[in-house]
Amino acid sequence: MKVQVTQENLNKAISAVARVAVSSRNPLPILNNILLRTDKNRLTISATNLEIAITEHVGAKIETEGAITLPAKLLQEFISSLPSGTITLETKDHKCTISSGNYNSVVNGMLADEFPIVPKIEKGVSISIGGKDLKKALQQVIIAASNDDTRPVLTGVYVHVHEGDLYMVATDSYRLAEKKVMPCKEDISILVPSNALNDVLRIVSDQDEDVVISTDNQQVVFRIGESELVSRLVDGNYPDYRKLIPSKFINSAQLPKDEFVNVTKVSSLFARESAGSITLNIDEVNKQMVIKSVASQLGENTASVVGEVSGEGDVTINSRYLLDALNVMSVKSVSFSFNGKLEPCLLKSDELSDYLHVIMPLKS
Amino acid sequence: MKVQVTQENLNKAISAVARVAVSSRNPLPILNNILLRTDKNRLTISATNLEIAITEHVGAKIETEGAITLPAKLLQEFISSLPSGTITLETKDHKCTISSGNYNSVVNGMLADEFPIVPKIEKGVSISIGGKDLKKALQQVIIAASNDDTRPVLTGVYVHVHEGDLYMVATDSYRLAEKKVMPCKEDISILVPSNALNDVLRIVSDQDEDVVISTDNQQVVFRIGESELVSRLVDGNYPDYRKLIPSKFINSAQLPKDEFVNVTKVSSLFARESAGSITLNIDEVNKQMVIKSVASQLGENTASVVGEVSGEGDVTINSRYLLDALNVMSVKSVSFSFNGKLEPCLLKSDELSDYLHVIMPLKS
Repeated sequence: MKVQVTQENLNKAISAVARVAVSSRNPLPILNNILLRTDKNRLTISATNLEIAITEHVGAKIETEGAITLPAKLLQEFISSLPSGTITLETKDHKCTISSGNYNSVVNGMLADEFPIVPKIEKGVSISIGGKDLKKALQQVIIAASNDDTRPVLTGVYVHVHEGDLYMVATDSYRLAEKKVMPCKEDISILVPSNALNDVLRIVSDQDEDVVISTDNQQVVFRIGESELVSRLVDGNYPDYRKLIPSKFINSAQLPKDEFVNVTKVSSLFARESAGSITLNIDEVNKQMVIKSVASQLGENTASVVGEVSGEGDVTINSRYLLDALNVMSVKSVSFSFNGKLEPCLLKSDELSDYLHVIMPLKS
Repeated sequence: MKVQVTQENLNKAISAVARVAVSSRNPLPILNNILLRTDKNRLTISATNLEIAITEHVGAKIETEGAITLPAKLLQEFISSLPSGTITLETKDHKCTISSGNYNSVVNGMLADEFPIVPKIEKGVSISIGGKDLKKALQQVIIAASNDDTRPVLTGVYVHVHEGDLYMVATDSYRLAEKKVMPCKEDISILVPSNALNDVLRIVSDQDEDVVISTDNQQVVFRIGESELVSRLVDGNYPDYRKLIPSKFINSAQLPKDEFVNVTKVSSLFARESAGSITLNIDEVNKQMVIKSVASQLGENTASVVGEVSGEGDVTINSRYLLDALNVMSVKSVSFSFNGKLEPCLLKSDELSDYLHVIMPLKS
């Protein structure tokens, strides 16, 4: 293989795929390498950890066709440090000479034959969604997905169509986020690993480029401009979460969001000893919500937010979960509702009618 | 004690002293606290780890005099999270009620009597130096100080007067940095811990406020506006470093600094397996310096910088030391000179005549 590419294009492509290759979970040494392969007048750059594969395409001047795999970490640092301009890559067996201006390196790689084949989807359904909408939806639900591999189903985001609408849902059993994304005529019901969606978030640019999502119920592909991300799906049945969301509430507070965030943040400082536990009290008489946190060693804090409140009672929740949810809601005002001390609490906003967030109370 | 201060002033003062209190090396629990004490119409805020003490003064409305110590980490996070405006602090025994608007906390502290006395310097010499000049000098020498406590002398910066000029010098025995700071009529020869000087760097603002340095040969005080940093000195005799700096060189290269930095950075990527070792070669025929690095596993790199060179030969040094030195020299052009493979190399610049940096070669 002998090719010429610009430093800018090569650097961008390598940066996009490298994260998958440098992840510590890779079961085979060659997966720490990046595959470079000529493809007509382009250079195809891929990395995979057998769960997720990312492929980028960059325009290149191909003198001789071929392929090689090179260590991702070194390649990423090296290419990003080179000055802008043309880079020449020339392979001989498992070695690649990389030259640019007054820089001349030989990087030892591995033969491309040993690299796993990046899977493709032949048949299946496809939907198209605006990049900005996808980004927003993913950011709002992914926070509620579990990191705990012992219950794999909860590490996924449940992407499904219900009564003609596409929904994305995540829950770690302590909290749940549901986003109604858009009307959809296809029949989709898949569980996408949240790791893969974090990579999708990295690739989706802030330009509102359409993203095409295709699935054959074994795998899912996200096509974003010149990038392609393939991920296996999570096996298993998602819990019937809809019946867990209460529809009526005894206690409710409509609060200015920014103040609610500040008060929760300050309260959480005193909640470190108690795993983030803060107690929210609805005080109908003084038309306010009072948040209290106690650290036996350090002291205690009481703070209040004035709003439209109804009911009378209190509930203890994890302040981190509350902050996570408030932080993805770009609104001026939110409502926080709950029934008893042990029943789910609901965060919603009239300004964000397609989103809801449920937080389970802590035993207090 | 009952006082009122603005959140802005209190937050700034606590931030300045807190680092000393939250350091993990503190031998006593009370040293993780910050001392707050009324002092006429001001609140004095201090922290110490018995080696360094920092004191800040803020204007306050004093209703009742007194003192208390409060946990530094919580206090810093809490005060910085409060909205701007007036904060009221009221103590009762070892508890302090802190209130501001709709926030109301009780923080558990310890009695001020148990806090160590912050040392003062009664007699001794004092010099005054512009904040910007001090900052620049410290940044240029502190990089060469040692972190290794087994040779305490080398963890200090040698601040001394030699032939009517004030010098600051640091060396970890692998490299040495010397800055001629300014003419000085006093007789000073002290070893200031580089940790203390890092704190001085944090406190010196970018405004060119004068800093007064006083010492009684046991301790040193830096007075910077409303801040005061006291540090013990390092005991011991500093090595007679001047005789180690060669005055004549066989090989020398005058190079554009930015290119020299880039080439060294790229070369260092291939030098990780070999503890940063890169080989610099003076090539008089092609009027260039060639830098080579070899990683047996990963590959190798050769890069060159064109400049005015004289001599013929090579030397192997640690690329990190070279980058550290180049990064503190704000110049367009530097000279790199050396004799044999085992003799000290010298970095200098005509644009920075008061600074020199020596790097010892690696055995190659």
